[in-house]
Amino acid sequence: MVDTAKGTRDIVPEEAILFQEIQDIFKKNFELFGFNPLQTPTLELFETLSSQYTGGAEILKETFQLSDQGQRKLGLRYDLTVPFSRFVAMNPQLKMPFKRYQIGSVFRDGPVGSNRLREFTQCDCDVVGTKSIVADAECVQLFLQAFAALGLDVEVRVNNRKILDAMMNTLQISLDKRSSVILAIDKLDKKSRKDVEEEIYTLGVKKDVVAKLFELLNLQGSNTKILDGIAAFVGKDAEGVVEMRELLSYCSQKNVLFVPSLARGLAYYTGSIFEVYAPGTSVTSAIGSGGRYDKMIGSLLGSTQEYPAVGCSFGLDRIMAVVAEKRKQRVKSVVKVFVIPIGLSLDKVWPVVMELREKGVATDMYFAAKSVSKGLDFANAYKIPYVLLIGEDELKKKKVKLKDMDSGKEEMLSVKDVVKKVL
Amino acid sequence: MVDTAKGTRDIVPEEAILFQEIQDIFKKNFELFGFNPLQTPTLELFETLSSQYTGGAEILKETFQLSDQGQRKLGLRYDLTVPFSRFVAMNPQLKMPFKRYQIGSVFRDGPVGSNRLREFTQCDCDVVGTKSIVADAECVQLFLQAFAALGLDVEVRVNNRKILDAMMNTLQISLDKRSSVILAIDKLDKKSRKDVEEEIYTLGVKKDVVAKLFELLNLQGSNTKILDGIAAFVGKDAEGVVEMRELLSYCSQKNVLFVPSLARGLAYYTGSIFEVYAPGTSVTSAIGSGGRYDKMIGSLLGSTQEYPAVGCSFGLDRIMAVVAEKRKQRVKSVVKVFVIPIGLSLDKVWPVVMELREKGVATDMYFAAKSVSKGLDFANAYKIPYVLLIGEDELKKKKVKLKDMDSGKEEMLSVKDVVKKVL
Repeated sequence: MVDTAKGTRDIVPEEAILFQEIQDIFKKNFELFGFNPLQTPTLELFETLSSQYTGGAEILKETFQLSDQGQRKLGLRYDLTVPFSRFVAMNPQLKMPFKRYQIGSVFRDGPVGSNRLREFTQCDCDVVGTKSIVADAECVQLFLQAFAALGLDVEVRVNNRKILDAMMNTLQISLDKRSSVILAIDKLDKKSRKDVEEEIYTLGVKKDVVAKLFELLNLQGSNTKILDGIAAFVGKDAEGVVEMRELLSYCSQKNVLFVPSLARGLAYYTGSIFEVYAPGTSVTSAIGSGGRYDKMIGSLLGSTQEYPAVGCSFGLDRIMAVVAEKRKQRVKSVVKVFVIPIGLSLDKVWPVVMELREKGVATDMYFAAKSVSKGLDFANAYKIPYVLLIGEDELKKKKVKLKDMDSGKEEMLSVKDVVKKVL
Repeated sequence: MVDTAKGTRDIVPEEAILFQEIQDIFKKNFELFGFNPLQTPTLELFETLSSQYTGGAEILKETFQLSDQGQRKLGLRYDLTVPFSRFVAMNPQLKMPFKRYQIGSVFRDGPVGSNRLREFTQCDCDVVGTKSIVADAECVQLFLQAFAALGLDVEVRVNNRKILDAMMNTLQISLDKRSSVILAIDKLDKKSRKDVEEEIYTLGVKKDVVAKLFELLNLQGSNTKILDGIAAFVGKDAEGVVEMRELLSYCSQKNVLFVPSLARGLAYYTGSIFEVYAPGTSVTSAIGSGGRYDKMIGSLLGSTQEYPAVGCSFGLDRIMAVVAEKRKQRVKSVVKVFVIPIGLSLDKVWPVVMELREKGVATDMYFAAKSVSKGLDFANAYKIPYVLLIGEDELKKKKVKLKDMDSGKEEMLSVKDVVKKVL
């Protein structure tokens, strides 16, 4: 009878509690890195979303369209990057570089799968207005610091589009074939090397060229060794090599891996590209990604002014899945203490409930007051850690009975001591 | 050229910082009161939104409609109550009473004004599954505690629909006129008493009846005195009187006012109703509201099962306006320390920046590195409180120069001491 719209879902308390915890940790780290919050609307002019320099035809097909009563064509945002670019365009007074983060729902009217929803959450940090590779390095470091704060072991893979371009330059793969070759390479995660090679052959690239390309893509060893190998082929002063060397000088952590075959599909990347994985978990796809897109904002504006930009995006839904997998117990309620009156009306326990709340203890009480055992069932169902039992006897003694729901242990305490115990 | 959709707006960092601070304070207090987070989607089936027991024709006219590629009729939620009711309906296994809060965008395709947007934020707490007046009292107390945490002096006005009904019963105003009379009374805030009286006369209610009604509505004195006056007329055992007496017994604070003329327009309220005001500010309309709606969820389900419910809603945009008015200074950036290299490349100051971030200091650096004075201008533009100047000399001494941007005072400190100073 009643239902949610296809491809949307409710985030129930036990998921929402975790979702919020993750977001709070991310927000804190974004701010430590100097990113400020910015909130753009869910609704955008369709004209903005369909600008030729943004998502392209694929994404446009999946854009939810609607109109207002004034017959203006609108759309639901399909990402947070296009609205951010629109914001930059509308605010020429912004002091550059400008760093912002945003967490919000985005919408795609596409096929629905187990990991594909039509309304999902994106979580982006971007900086616009600087070409400095230090900004790229900050994205990598932000990934490392934010995921460490979450207690996750991650691997950040980095590459640079200019390195892929330089390889293809040296290999004399013609310009018109390059984006198709990059798209094919990008599938190495999902397809076998042989299938990808076949795909590149069909583009008209010769076998020996493909063989050399794969030799470069498969270089092994330390980041520096791989980069040296590529530099030996494309030249040590090639822009991509220089940029990558600088990036790596800022990112010497062991879990930052230079992966020359990393391509990322999106056409708008112009320099550094990143992907984050959580090895050893059941989530095999990237849980974070990003890169440099120096041309998108200017193009969107039809402007000759340059808006160099780099950003990183956290895949919240997948991150949720990874964290949930790591945790043995899920918090089912924010409530710490559940008050059950024994043969008393609620007004008798009310002052205790209010005192606990004022002291910072998340407290609820059993409204129904049917029976103590039903109250305990309720607390159990929501896995509330403590129950406070209050009867005539306790009131007289000015004490309360605190029951630890995990151990079953009971103690007679003053309210003050309850606060100390549970906080 | 580029623009936002009509009736939508960007929340720029200096607003978003405050917006987030307010939301964080509210969330914390909602959880102290035992409300759990729940996130329902932005998109709902149009059928759900247009159910006859929800918003009614007025609100439906303003509902943004769209469809997915499967031609399903969808709508953007116009409030958070209907999606909540739909959630309760879909989850019969929920242990009652169930308390949830949600903060999210809602959409109304209506006329746009200075205080009316087409996309705005609602912030709701509701409890379903209990008739206990203690739940109503919790709403009032939550208003008081959450606004106190924000540092606002507020006034919570309370009434009960059953009291208005009881008055009309005793005054023998016929059932078919009552909702129109209530709607008229609800306008006492905006219209003169005379105009409201006129409106009630035209409904066919006699002058002496209206006179008596206003005598009751205008009773003066303490909450108890007013209630006693009404009880003397409608009977002390009238349901509304009994409920109000219980509510007031839980809410003895001076800034809780029993206002018998408080009516609230929405048809779905069945018992207690609340409104919160911020006297002494330029915001004269309610910044919070709520009430009991015992029949909506069951009706929505076409169910005979009862779903008594009570909730309160925080008007975030208006609350923002009130808080902004109270504060002299607005925070323009989350950044606490801005690092400017003096004649050094960024890699030399990078370790300091990263150390500060790891230690919990929100830090940014001047990417452009054009000149120290331009860096200072940048920090000034964003009202960043501290600047860290680092040159060859500082590096040698293993110290940094901390400049307090407010006082202009400069100190040579170790990074460790900078952390102590600014945190």
